[in-house]
Amino acid sequence: MNPLLASSPHVITVGAGLLDEALRAQAVPTTPVAWRPPLPGTAAALAAALADPRRHEANALAVGRLTAARPHLVGVRRASELLEAGTFLHAGPPITWERASGPMRGALIGAMLLEGGAADEHEAADRLAAGAVTLRPCHEHGAVGPMAGVVSPSMWLFEVRDDEHGGTAYCSLNEGLGKVLRYGAYGPEVLERLRWMDRVLGPALAATLERTGPIDLRSLIAQALQMGDELHNRNRAATSLLLRELAPAVVEAAPGAAAEVLRFVNGNDHFFLNVGMAAAKAATDAARDVPGSSLVVAMARNGTDFGVQVSGLGGRWFTGPAGVPDGLYLGSYGPEDANPDIGDSTITETSGLGGFAMAASPAIVRFVGGEVADAVRATRSMYEITLAEHPVYQIPGLGFRGTPVGIDVTLVARTGLLPVVNTGIAGRVAGTGQVGAGLVAPPAEAFTRALLALAEANK
Amino acid sequence: MNPLLASSPHVITVGAGLLDEALRAQAVPTTPVAWRPPLPGTAAALAAALADPRRHEANALAVGRLTAARPHLVGVRRASELLEAGTFLHAGPPITWERASGPMRGALIGAMLLEGGAADEHEAADRLAAGAVTLRPCHEHGAVGPMAGVVSPSMWLFEVRDDEHGGTAYCSLNEGLGKVLRYGAYGPEVLERLRWMDRVLGPALAATLERTGPIDLRSLIAQALQMGDELHNRNRAATSLLLRELAPAVVEAAPGAAAEVLRFVNGNDHFFLNVGMAAAKAATDAARDVPGSSLVVAMARNGTDFGVQVSGLGGRWFTGPAGVPDGLYLGSYGPEDANPDIGDSTITETSGLGGFAMAASPAIVRFVGGEVADAVRATRSMYEITLAEHPVYQIPGLGFRGTPVGIDVTLVARTGLLPVVNTGIAGRVAGTGQVGAGLVAPPAEAFTRALLALAEANK
Repeated sequence: MNPLLASSPHVITVGAGLLDEALRAQAVPTTPVAWRPPLPGTAAALAAALADPRRHEANALAVGRLTAARPHLVGVRRASELLEAGTFLHAGPPITWERASGPMRGALIGAMLLEGGAADEHEAADRLAAGAVTLRPCHEHGAVGPMAGVVSPSMWLFEVRDDEHGGTAYCSLNEGLGKVLRYGAYGPEVLERLRWMDRVLGPALAATLERTGPIDLRSLIAQALQMGDELHNRNRAATSLLLRELAPAVVEAAPGAAAEVLRFVNGNDHFFLNVGMAAAKAATDAARDVPGSSLVVAMARNGTDFGVQVSGLGGRWFTGPAGVPDGLYLGSYGPEDANPDIGDSTITETSGLGGFAMAASPAIVRFVGGEVADAVRATRSMYEITLAEHPVYQIPGLGFRGTPVGIDVTLVARTGLLPVVNTGIAGRVAGTGQVGAGLVAPPAEAFTRALLALAEANK
Repeated sequence: MNPLLASSPHVITVGAGLLDEALRAQAVPTTPVAWRPPLPGTAAALAAALADPRRHEANALAVGRLTAARPHLVGVRRASELLEAGTFLHAGPPITWERASGPMRGALIGAMLLEGGAADEHEAADRLAAGAVTLRPCHEHGAVGPMAGVVSPSMWLFEVRDDEHGGTAYCSLNEGLGKVLRYGAYGPEVLERLRWMDRVLGPALAATLERTGPIDLRSLIAQALQMGDELHNRNRAATSLLLRELAPAVVEAAPGAAAEVLRFVNGNDHFFLNVGMAAAKAATDAARDVPGSSLVVAMARNGTDFGVQVSGLGGRWFTGPAGVPDGLYLGSYGPEDANPDIGDSTITETSGLGGFAMAASPAIVRFVGGEVADAVRATRSMYEITLAEHPVYQIPGLGFRGTPVGIDVTLVARTGLLPVVNTGIAGRVAGTGQVGAGLVAPPAEAFTRALLALAEANK
């Protein structure tokens, strides 16, 4: 007799539930296994990447560095101190004026006007098209920028230092809501606000931070997660906690400007976003350049392309077309007004926050759409593509489980689960501003290409 | 044939599950009903109270007024403006020096010293024992006070106005943490802080609120619930949001004191508690004096007795012995150091916050003990003894369900479920200060007595 038939069968079922249901109806014990097909065309590369003997240790080292980072806000500096003349930074992987989307062009035009490089928007656009300014990604200058992420010399930057590994990261100051440069607006009120930020806000904050000394952002972010922020599209708690810390020192460091500075910060719940982005950049940078690691150390979008960088593959970008977010729209705007996904703010997801921490932030669904259960589901699914649970960033509603952190390209390819990103939505026409907020899936190509490069490097 | 046997039986099972299980095992359809015995000795009174034809409408009116209240912080006033000379207020139902617990005596001694009525603690105690000061409950003067709740003329009070019904409620300013008068401490550092509050903090906040105008506390509390506060033992978000609102105006209204005022408020996450207590008092007061209503309009403790007041029964107190909270202790303190439950802060539970809103505040379990699931269970059980779900105070984690609000004495008696109170724990020896925080069940007697009075009033 066939030995298979000598005892009662016990069947392991995989994938769709049909076989499992049929067997159970016949009282055959089964063990169902959740399984998804890997991303198309990745089977061979996946096998090669998984065979890398360095991988396990390299990933443990890389994600250990990411989660051990202790980012502190140490200062505020004018970009002119750090940026060579004639260079503007922008969000996402490298982009040219020709391929730039509406909001990216709008922000570049605004920066050109702010710097006095053109008399009006048409001249600014002409000069940018003619290459009068060198465009470089923020990420290649140790910085990150939300939405268009444009940084020009007379803007100010938060300076964040990782006390564990010594790295430094920068992010621009948040301009507030409505028509703002980062969403591609460049009207007179936008430029006037940026000039006030250059003249008043930047110096006041710089003097304030000299007074407070370094502010522990890891602790502040951990607290904000206990208070319903996910640190990408909800920063209400973090902004409030930071303002509490800064307020007495603002009064002492800049008494003449204190009231307007405090009023400006209080007027914008996203003020902390940029601080948190720099903290995330400092942490993910600590995980860079570990040979053999398949850990994602940056995800970023320029409004045209979505790009990822991987720890074991240096500064190379792996890109795919940026998708259009699905979410809630402001006023009379709708999906037809939306620009494809834009900004370096996906550094929050890369560090285990934002879409990955949505279970900590039930109220976020009022801003990006969906139900509370969707937010919990989103976070739970991200544990399948990440290498660790953050030891300090915890989710009270999941019994204080750490947030999923450390996206592994091989896990993305193997499960077909793409990182959950929650994001603001920029109007596609230059000069519009914000039109909504929602969720967006990154293009699978970016991860597939990174995986192929890992397999190639492994040969 | 007995008509009961002419068709298949369908059995409704009540209480313990034994009968239900036995019938189900025999494939008899059952409808199990959750049921608890009413509080002992309440059956007749319950029948009488439930028979009151006014009850349904009276309760709808009362709880409608409670949830429609729109409390606004309108000012800060010195208690001397409102308090007749020679009177001190205290928390809970009326109490005499003879029956006062350690922390209540400690706070009264401190107030006596603060007012210059005695040269030292012994003289203060002697004079208080001799009746040199009239002791009256805060609640009888439109006020509430946390823990000992002692108010003397040179303390300042938050003034909250209910814009819907026009009522006004007061609460003292929160002193901060550690050794503080409200926990029964009265050392030199306690008195020095109170003198600074009288000289600097009170006037600065009064000038600030004149500048900001009324601050909408209903909106602020609703936001804080979205940010993980339950507004009794967790007020971190509410304190942060209030400080954000006040900060620019503090700078303008009291430039010389702004930094120290902001530093003081930032140093104490419970700063908002007292504001929220006044807001809760304004709302519950709006529900008072509806003839026939069995709604609880106050729960309060003086460290010896726990008392409730009921809408349809005027200003009468129904009391039972205050229990000792069960929770987490600070440092080397333990249950043997704990005083019985004390303070008017149960006004938060009376208005649908605190223990009733714990599901909104998973992080609270780190402060009062237990697991996140316990917090969710506590809130869910309170829907069984309340008349409404708050239309504005919502719990994101329960799909934005309103908090349970409006305790009904008849529902408490019928279910035997007592209100869940989360609270600070005072040291039982006068002068000690805070020793912990935890949960406490009110004495069933207080509710039984109120029910008997309702039945009596109904004759």
